[in-house]
Amino acid sequence: MGLQTRINAAVESAIHVGQSGSAPSKLSDALHYACTPGGARIRPTILLSVAMACGDDAPEITNAAAAALELIHCASLVHDDLPCFDDADIRRGKPSVHRAYSEPLAVLTGDSLIILAFEILARAAVHSPDRAVRLIRTLSHQSGMPNGICAGQGWESEAKIDLSAYHRSKTGALFIAATQMGAIAAGQDEEPWFELGARIGEAFQVADDLRDALYDSETLGKPAGQDDLHGRPNAVSQLGVDGAISRLRDILSGAISSIPSCPGEAQLAEMVRLQAEALTPVPASRAAKAG
Amino acid sequence: MGLQTRINAAVESAIHVGQSGSAPSKLSDALHYACTPGGARIRPTILLSVAMACGDDAPEITNAAAAALELIHCASLVHDDLPCFDDADIRRGKPSVHRAYSEPLAVLTGDSLIILAFEILARAAVHSPDRAVRLIRTLSHQSGMPNGICAGQGWESEAKIDLSAYHRSKTGALFIAATQMGAIAAGQDEEPWFELGARIGEAFQVADDLRDALYDSETLGKPAGQDDLHGRPNAVSQLGVDGAISRLRDILSGAISSIPSCPGEAQLAEMVRLQAEALTPVPASRAAKAG
Repeated sequence: MGLQTRINAAVESAIHVGQSGSAPSKLSDALHYACTPGGARIRPTILLSVAMACGDDAPEITNAAAAALELIHCASLVHDDLPCFDDADIRRGKPSVHRAYSEPLAVLTGDSLIILAFEILARAAVHSPDRAVRLIRTLSHQSGMPNGICAGQGWESEAKIDLSAYHRSKTGALFIAATQMGAIAAGQDEEPWFELGARIGEAFQVADDLRDALYDSETLGKPAGQDDLHGRPNAVSQLGVDGAISRLRDILSGAISSIPSCPGEAQLAEMVRLQAEALTPVPASRAAKAG
Repeated sequence: MGLQTRINAAVESAIHVGQSGSAPSKLSDALHYACTPGGARIRPTILLSVAMACGDDAPEITNAAAAALELIHCASLVHDDLPCFDDADIRRGKPSVHRAYSEPLAVLTGDSLIILAFEILARAAVHSPDRAVRLIRTLSHQSGMPNGICAGQGWESEAKIDLSAYHRSKTGALFIAATQMGAIAAGQDEEPWFELGARIGEAFQVADDLRDALYDSETLGKPAGQDDLHGRPNAVSQLGVDGAISRLRDILSGAISSIPSCPGEAQLAEMVRLQAEALTPVPASRAAKAG
């Protein structure tokens, strides 16, 4: 089974848990709508890749971990798109959840997906209570306050932003969760996997800044130019396009050399290289020269 | 230590976990603002009362369970007050979180409190992984979709409401969580405690309907007449004031007789009786006659 197939099956199975019985049908539909079809599923792909590099000896736990992480990510997209944040009409090329279902249902969809993520991990405890508890601790730590993605969004309401804390929590947190949860799911210590997650997170931030600055809304599948519009810090405005691309490559080399020793180390390095290729946008001027 | 002191200490300690380090300060403050000073703390009071009736042999777990339950309840109040739901300006006699801090911060406060609830329970796993996992399963089940308070709110977006599922999930769910989590925290089976929670939830719903119909906003500490305004089903419009009070008493007798056999059975029955007194509003006409 390919990684994408495995991730999509895990996400479908998790959503199904939230839909059984006599659930209100619109909210039930909205849970599915918010998570499928997926985007690049990059966080669960990293999680699975790390788990597999570490032996993946309890695949049910790995699947639950991948689904839980993706549910939290999707919940954050649904809430970030709300009128009081980005007020985004489109997401992944279709109407955002509050546009398709209503604002109350978008708030509830995000809330329900967050709760479902922890329910899925608690259910996976039948396979290993110890790993399930550590997964819940890691996911909650990287999602909430004071270190997680909620803190990251919270920084945008401050007059004075701690930029390093802002980027680490806003973008880095769920990549750290991805590498650490992959290790935990495979029965390994999570600490040595912090750095890989943090560096992939940094790379992703720079790549996102590049895409936001270079691409139009249609290519992105979401509104472009949001950083300029909301006055958010952006690597392109600080380093220029070439500087940002060069920085992205440096971070990814660092990420690869930070991979802890494990049976699937070489294959994991290859995966990070592939993600790097996929992440790096080609500026329109160079694409034209190459064409 | 009295129950209220114990609950407030547990809630303060839980919020402190969400505020440590370099957290964004407004969101950090809003977490505390949303949970203190508390309302009646009725759900954690029931949880602690059940745990104590069952021996309370692991008080750290009981405290974590009480705090987690109250955090989820406070999160639901913050999100329910948002402009897209009740658009409430006041809550517990002070400005609602979105009025005091902004709408983005209110969304993030609710999200952060939900996540923090699960983090607190996962941290309590050092005392007993088995009980922590069961607490997380129970709390997530009674909070999210398809059975929890998110489902309850979700029903309000449906053209045709399943009234029994609506009331069970909207109001009953967190009372069922209260009795079952109290039993789990004390190392007992949660199943026999379902009925007590469900009946207290029904009683609370009728009492809330009575208060919504009889009291003004100042007495309530939140907007009155919301059920009529939003066309929501209400026991007073169905049974009249006297009929609703009589129904409330019947439900509470049933609740008391449903208490499973346990060392502190008599004391627990007394607690339910006291809650019943506190819950039952005195209609203004009778208060005038009595005065």
